[in-house]
Amino acid sequence: MGHSAVVSSDGPVRNAADEVSRVVEQSKELQDSATSLISRTSEEEASLRQRALALRSNIKMLRSFIFSSLKKGNLDPKNAAKMIEELTRVNFALNEGDAAAYLPCKSHGRFLRMLLGPINVRANRKDVQLKVKEEYNNFRDTTAYLFLLFPSLLLVLRTWMWNGCFPALPVQLYQAWLLFLYTGLSFRENILRVNGSDIRPWWIYHHYCAMTMALISLTWEIEREPECAQKQKGIQLFLKWAIMQGIAMLLQNKYQRQRLYTRIALGKARRMDVVWGETAGVEGQLWFLCPMLFVLQVFEGYVGVLLLKTAMVGVISEWQVVTCGVLLITMAVGNFANTVETLLLKSRFKAKMKKGMVGWLYIHVWVRLDDGGVRS
Amino acid sequence: MGHSAVVSSDGPVRNAADEVSRVVEQSKELQDSATSLISRTSEEEASLRQRALALRSNIKMLRSFIFSSLKKGNLDPKNAAKMIEELTRVNFALNEGDAAAYLPCKSHGRFLRMLLGPINVRANRKDVQLKVKEEYNNFRDTTAYLFLLFPSLLLVLRTWMWNGCFPALPVQLYQAWLLFLYTGLSFRENILRVNGSDIRPWWIYHHYCAMTMALISLTWEIEREPECAQKQKGIQLFLKWAIMQGIAMLLQNKYQRQRLYTRIALGKARRMDVVWGETAGVEGQLWFLCPMLFVLQVFEGYVGVLLLKTAMVGVISEWQVVTCGVLLITMAVGNFANTVETLLLKSRFKAKMKKGMVGWLYIHVWVRLDDGGVRS
Repeated sequence: MGHSAVVSSDGPVRNAADEVSRVVEQSKELQDSATSLISRTSEEEASLRQRALALRSNIKMLRSFIFSSLKKGNLDPKNAAKMIEELTRVNFALNEGDAAAYLPCKSHGRFLRMLLGPINVRANRKDVQLKVKEEYNNFRDTTAYLFLLFPSLLLVLRTWMWNGCFPALPVQLYQAWLLFLYTGLSFRENILRVNGSDIRPWWIYHHYCAMTMALISLTWEIEREPECAQKQKGIQLFLKWAIMQGIAMLLQNKYQRQRLYTRIALGKARRMDVVWGETAGVEGQLWFLCPMLFVLQVFEGYVGVLLLKTAMVGVISEWQVVTCGVLLITMAVGNFANTVETLLLKSRFKAKMKKGMVGWLYIHVWVRLDDGGVRS
Repeated sequence: MGHSAVVSSDGPVRNAADEVSRVVEQSKELQDSATSLISRTSEEEASLRQRALALRSNIKMLRSFIFSSLKKGNLDPKNAAKMIEELTRVNFALNEGDAAAYLPCKSHGRFLRMLLGPINVRANRKDVQLKVKEEYNNFRDTTAYLFLLFPSLLLVLRTWMWNGCFPALPVQLYQAWLLFLYTGLSFRENILRVNGSDIRPWWIYHHYCAMTMALISLTWEIEREPECAQKQKGIQLFLKWAIMQGIAMLLQNKYQRQRLYTRIALGKARRMDVVWGETAGVEGQLWFLCPMLFVLQVFEGYVGVLLLKTAMVGVISEWQVVTCGVLLITMAVGNFANTVETLLLKSRFKAKMKKGMVGWLYIHVWVRLDDGGVRS
């Protein structure tokens, strides 16, 4: 701004000195404004935090009062259901609306604390949170294609170029990529959790298992001639499972993305209705997705059992084989249990919807939401 | 708050219904306050951002004007030095004061974007930033002790229990720990950079190299009998280097921590003086630290050359040996160049201080600061 003044005819020394003192003045004013904004904002935030906490405890108290009155017969069930419905809406708004930014943040968890230190990864604004979710879906999309591409390429090259025997380097590059991928997924999912996503804890543990397996598989010697075909059977099976996993990931991503779009399209005003509306239009895909997921889980467990068997027969008896086998079986069982639980919740939810017991449904869903259960 | 009203004698239905509508009302008010605070704050932040940017460009323009006037002989050098000094103070305040939170943030860099997604890891408040730095130092302290402990333990057990031959598992556990450690350091240093630390980019690249090396060393087959002593020479050398590295890290940490404490002790009011005062009292340690660092770097390069030699002689000719050798030599050369550059800057700085050419010194330091150079 003052540059023209500086080059005026009065001689540069005086003008430059004036400009410098003007800049010094500007700097002081700017610092004062910044300090005042920061202190004002943190005061207002503290007050909002208190109000949000008070509201949350009021909701809780009121809910338990209604339940106990219902038990004692002091309340008409229909009335109680209506009140619980109302309270659930309020609770949902508290967790999903702008005020949610001022509720105490979920713990960052050991994983984030260990690797990132004490930095806060929570976004205060809802649009940033949705951007994080959207980018997570993009990341999953890209990785799903690579999940299809890499193992397919390895299997094709094995037949066409490598005479039935994997060389070590390409397999290890693939394993290193898996390690990077699962680390990235673990980070993103932990960050989503901090930002209010009710992602099931199992899916995060599952990625920790997968990270461990990728790390262990890197130390696994890739056997060479002779008899490599026999000894590399585990790797082959694993690659085939990975291809199926890639297909399932693509389908899952499509399903989840449609749910997110529905949520955004319904907009802020109807955000509370999202829980009901979000599965509309993707029902058909779910019935295609589930059998696929189950087949995948069975295959995952089968690969694990095969690995344990090779270890017991003594073809390859290194600890890596046993550990990877155990990890695969653990993941298969955990995935299966969690998929079944999600499906049961969804179907119970639907049955209740049909019976029109909206209030009771709300109660049920609400209790689950408090546990951090249903939404994913 | 309303719990007492709920249990009053008028009958629970009416009171519960009242309480519910009161909670609904509270919720609406809370959401409105939250929305208004968020929009007001982001407006004020945008205005502060503009003012900070304008100030920065004013400083730049004024600086180049003073320099050109000086060249043309239109300005007395003494006057110019004084003005530059003033401008440097303003620039420093802009980068270190409360307003710094509103300057556009440094790019997060590929590493953070790839693994964390689009989340913002910048802390707005200065005390949080100092906490991040303090925790980073704590992390380095802990790891420095482990850096001493693990390789020492491996070397001792090799002589006492393992008859001169490392078994694979303990070495691989150590390598996995190194991978975890260097990943953590890379994250923390990238986060520090985003939060305004002028850490030299080389130290971050250095940790990427170390991460790569740890990953590669995991795929490296640990040779067994016979002749393991000969074939494991590389590992042995590496462990010895790691012990020395641990000692150097401990000393470096002590030095850096003292600098941070000096900075905090000088307080906000004298924050601008920190650049001058921070080395006071740790001068003696620096002259002990430097030779240590140089010996370490030479040893690092030596281990790299030895690895390349074993690969060429053909004792172990896997690609891992060659790559690790090249990485170690790269790190040694880079570390050496960066240590020398830092020392040269420090000594030039001191010489100028003694000559009393404070203004010119400021000019020099300022140019370096703009490049993201001096402070670490």
